[in-house]
Amino acid sequence: MQDSHNGSTRRRRTREPRRQLATLEQLDWSLPSYTDQPIEPLDSDGLERIHNAAMRILEEIGITFLHPKARSLLKEAGCDVNEKTECVRMDRVFVMEQVAKAPASFKLVPRNPARSIIWGGRHFTFGPVASPPNVSDLDGGRRVGNRVDYQNLLRLSQTFNCLHFSAGYPVEPVDLHASTRHLHAFYDLLTLTDKITHAYSLGTERIEDAMEMVRIAAGVSVEEFDSTARMYTNINSSSPLKHDWPMLDGAMRMAARGQPVVVAPFTLAGAMAPVTLAGALAQQTAEALSAIALLQVVRPGAPCVFGAFTSNVDMKSGAPAFGTPEYVRAMQISGQLARRYHLPWRGSNANACNTPDAQATWESMFSLWGVTTGQANMVKHGAGWLEGGLTASFEKLVIDCEMLQQFIYYQKPIGTTDEDLAVDAIAEVGPNGHFLGCEHTRERYQTAFYSPFLSDWRNFESWQLDGGKDAVQRANTLYKRLLDEYVPPPIDEAIREELTEFVDRRCREGGAKTDF
Amino acid sequence: MQDSHNGSTRRRRTREPRRQLATLEQLDWSLPSYTDQPIEPLDSDGLERIHNAAMRILEEIGITFLHPKARSLLKEAGCDVNEKTECVRMDRVFVMEQVAKAPASFKLVPRNPARSIIWGGRHFTFGPVASPPNVSDLDGGRRVGNRVDYQNLLRLSQTFNCLHFSAGYPVEPVDLHASTRHLHAFYDLLTLTDKITHAYSLGTERIEDAMEMVRIAAGVSVEEFDSTARMYTNINSSSPLKHDWPMLDGAMRMAARGQPVVVAPFTLAGAMAPVTLAGALAQQTAEALSAIALLQVVRPGAPCVFGAFTSNVDMKSGAPAFGTPEYVRAMQISGQLARRYHLPWRGSNANACNTPDAQATWESMFSLWGVTTGQANMVKHGAGWLEGGLTASFEKLVIDCEMLQQFIYYQKPIGTTDEDLAVDAIAEVGPNGHFLGCEHTRERYQTAFYSPFLSDWRNFESWQLDGGKDAVQRANTLYKRLLDEYVPPPIDEAIREELTEFVDRRCREGGAKTDF
Repeated sequence: MQDSHNGSTRRRRTREPRRQLATLEQLDWSLPSYTDQPIEPLDSDGLERIHNAAMRILEEIGITFLHPKARSLLKEAGCDVNEKTECVRMDRVFVMEQVAKAPASFKLVPRNPARSIIWGGRHFTFGPVASPPNVSDLDGGRRVGNRVDYQNLLRLSQTFNCLHFSAGYPVEPVDLHASTRHLHAFYDLLTLTDKITHAYSLGTERIEDAMEMVRIAAGVSVEEFDSTARMYTNINSSSPLKHDWPMLDGAMRMAARGQPVVVAPFTLAGAMAPVTLAGALAQQTAEALSAIALLQVVRPGAPCVFGAFTSNVDMKSGAPAFGTPEYVRAMQISGQLARRYHLPWRGSNANACNTPDAQATWESMFSLWGVTTGQANMVKHGAGWLEGGLTASFEKLVIDCEMLQQFIYYQKPIGTTDEDLAVDAIAEVGPNGHFLGCEHTRERYQTAFYSPFLSDWRNFESWQLDGGKDAVQRANTLYKRLLDEYVPPPIDEAIREELTEFVDRRCREGGAKTDF
Repeated sequence: MQDSHNGSTRRRRTREPRRQLATLEQLDWSLPSYTDQPIEPLDSDGLERIHNAAMRILEEIGITFLHPKARSLLKEAGCDVNEKTECVRMDRVFVMEQVAKAPASFKLVPRNPARSIIWGGRHFTFGPVASPPNVSDLDGGRRVGNRVDYQNLLRLSQTFNCLHFSAGYPVEPVDLHASTRHLHAFYDLLTLTDKITHAYSLGTERIEDAMEMVRIAAGVSVEEFDSTARMYTNINSSSPLKHDWPMLDGAMRMAARGQPVVVAPFTLAGAMAPVTLAGALAQQTAEALSAIALLQVVRPGAPCVFGAFTSNVDMKSGAPAFGTPEYVRAMQISGQLARRYHLPWRGSNANACNTPDAQATWESMFSLWGVTTGQANMVKHGAGWLEGGLTASFEKLVIDCEMLQQFIYYQKPIGTTDEDLAVDAIAEVGPNGHFLGCEHTRERYQTAFYSPFLSDWRNFESWQLDGGKDAVQRANTLYKRLLDEYVPPPIDEAIREELTEFVDRRCREGGAKTDF
């Protein structure tokens, strides 16, 4: 900035006009780790009882695999396959042998290696909202998902350092035709962000196209792609007890090439799973481990994530509930189960609220405390989720990022050196002074405390004079400013052209079938 | 209710017309306990370093006691007292000997013994907002505290079972003259609620009047009163390093009669305490233990509570910040310190927000997770606090109670019996069914899950058709309905008359001096 008045800077500004304006004060990009012990609601006996129930489900009841290749692979591996019902029963020795082959921890490397992350151990990572059909903000209200909002949500996901990976589409770009949507959407993902990307397992073409585009964006060979985790897919079982064809197909293709698969059963207690938490968790475990076992048969050592989405329905209405005490406990016990199986695990920042108000916030906070005290390694839907996943909210995304940042900062160790204990400063200030001006404070005040980007801590009168804006209104102002300041991450022009050519070619070929 | 159609019931209904209408679905009154392990950020070495720094503050720097009797008692007990500076230095052996006399746990019995609570062990209790000068709701906006709002906040505090005790005045009834305010305010407290009450330590008359009124309300003799904890006072040190006369006077009078004293230093890091968390906690510990040591000299075994109010200021503006990562850690470490000293401890549900929006909620949730993972025994300002304590909000009170209830419910153990594990139900439903109608669900659905009174879990369309009300608007509707349905707890008419006579007499005598 020292040469801001000479011509050369003016020229540089012309080339990168907006980068200089970035004004978001946020924590630097980092891969945070949990420093506390996890909260573990069950003792080892209780945990073993859930494990045993899950094994009984797999041995005695079985899981339906709606994919012939999955069934034939499992049959070859010694499972009891009923081709008529498509049900596969597997004994616990087989399951545990397969699960033991999955890595407890693995690194994911996106096209920008500086954005690499690790899933496993005590590391934790957050991703934005994924997959809602609708999008909303204060200005435009609630509307059907579209590419403009999709791109803007990607830009925000890229901007916030507390978001470590891209999840599914932050909103479904419904205005793109379903057969070629994934091509344009992935082009946006790979050019507007440089973080780890997710590809939907919606049949053969989509997942193959996505892998090829990630390979092109990374500028690596097929062998190099296959040797490192560079993206991931998330599959949900069709609870109860079923894995469908498109998800299995995508998951097996990803696993075959060493790309991570998150297996997240959608076990809502009372609807798709038993009304008891222990029962729902036993079913979640059975469904997740059955798919992970399959993927280990496909490629031993394929990176897998134990997904936890157990919550409950409101028994008065049948509506899904999230961020409830049940959800917190389900997440913490899922963490216990994942650690028992030496698998990384996934949770979510979920809520069932229609607007980003106090309810949305307390439900999100219960969810986030549940997944973080349970020590989830990846938190999907970390920012922007509303209505149980039916809407992506721009304002909620900003609010959630403010909370996520605090969860990251919270893991900072508390120093207890003599300097930290400050007995000398206390003696210096004495009973009649204050610490605002003392040297001990002056040396530390700039970095002493967490500094939020969204909180308003002014007194009531100042706040009111300035319009009395609540958190949602401030989030609205901030997200628009961030979009205005957004600069895309650098990409090699040759790579961009190769991506464009790939998209064009695959569009000409018709993209993917839409009859799944 | 079996005779609801005969005349006697109709007469009863005439006498108590509103009791039958109560419609708040809430958890029953209970004394909850923590079932998890506490989160402990410091290892034993770090904890001892804070302890050691606190002891050095007491030994080398000293605490100012602005009360001659306090100084003379401490001098008699062997402390180093400087009468000119009013500073008292006490060595660690003395402090720890005195603190060891305080009970680790004790029972408090209000005028309705069914509302007894325990402070200590793994028990936890919540109280409402205390002491703001202002009050607000959607209808009337923000206004100066007054008796009508004061009484209404008491009625709500009585109504919610998640609130276990009354704290200070939920809003200051400023329209009552300061000299007799405590008499009218305490009359309201003792007739509109039947839970444990707090009396302000604001000099001699107020605390003596309050103790006498609590004795009258309980219908017990002076000896019976003195033998059991029946109320409490909360004192704040004038940080740094000072205890003022009115608080010391009230606290010593309470302790002398066996009534609990909560000692809560107001150690905002960066302003009244060092900018480092460890330093602020060392100072908090020194200030709290110095008063607790004094109270043990006054009456060995007097029930005391280790108060924790350490947070930080925003170093950009000097404004207090609450519900920050620093606050969470300060609360958890305060829990470690309290357990080290075998003392019950107090935290708060604090926030620095001007309106009950998302920010107020995330700050409250960070506060509540901080105090509950730190396992506070009493949580003051549990419901209704806004603006760092400058305003009591009717809507925030309802929102907070919804959250407090969930913290209570969350402690419920998770069953893992065969019935809970539901393998038979999973077999029965199979891969093509759902659990909504199965017998296992039908037997349990009514009590299976937490049932909120404020959440709206309807889908967007239903919610929007019904006015699209956010949590604050719904809380507004609910609090007014609860006031409409409120029925005061029963009180013996003779006792009520005795209270009235006491208030009248003390008012005629002029009440309390107002020159403190």
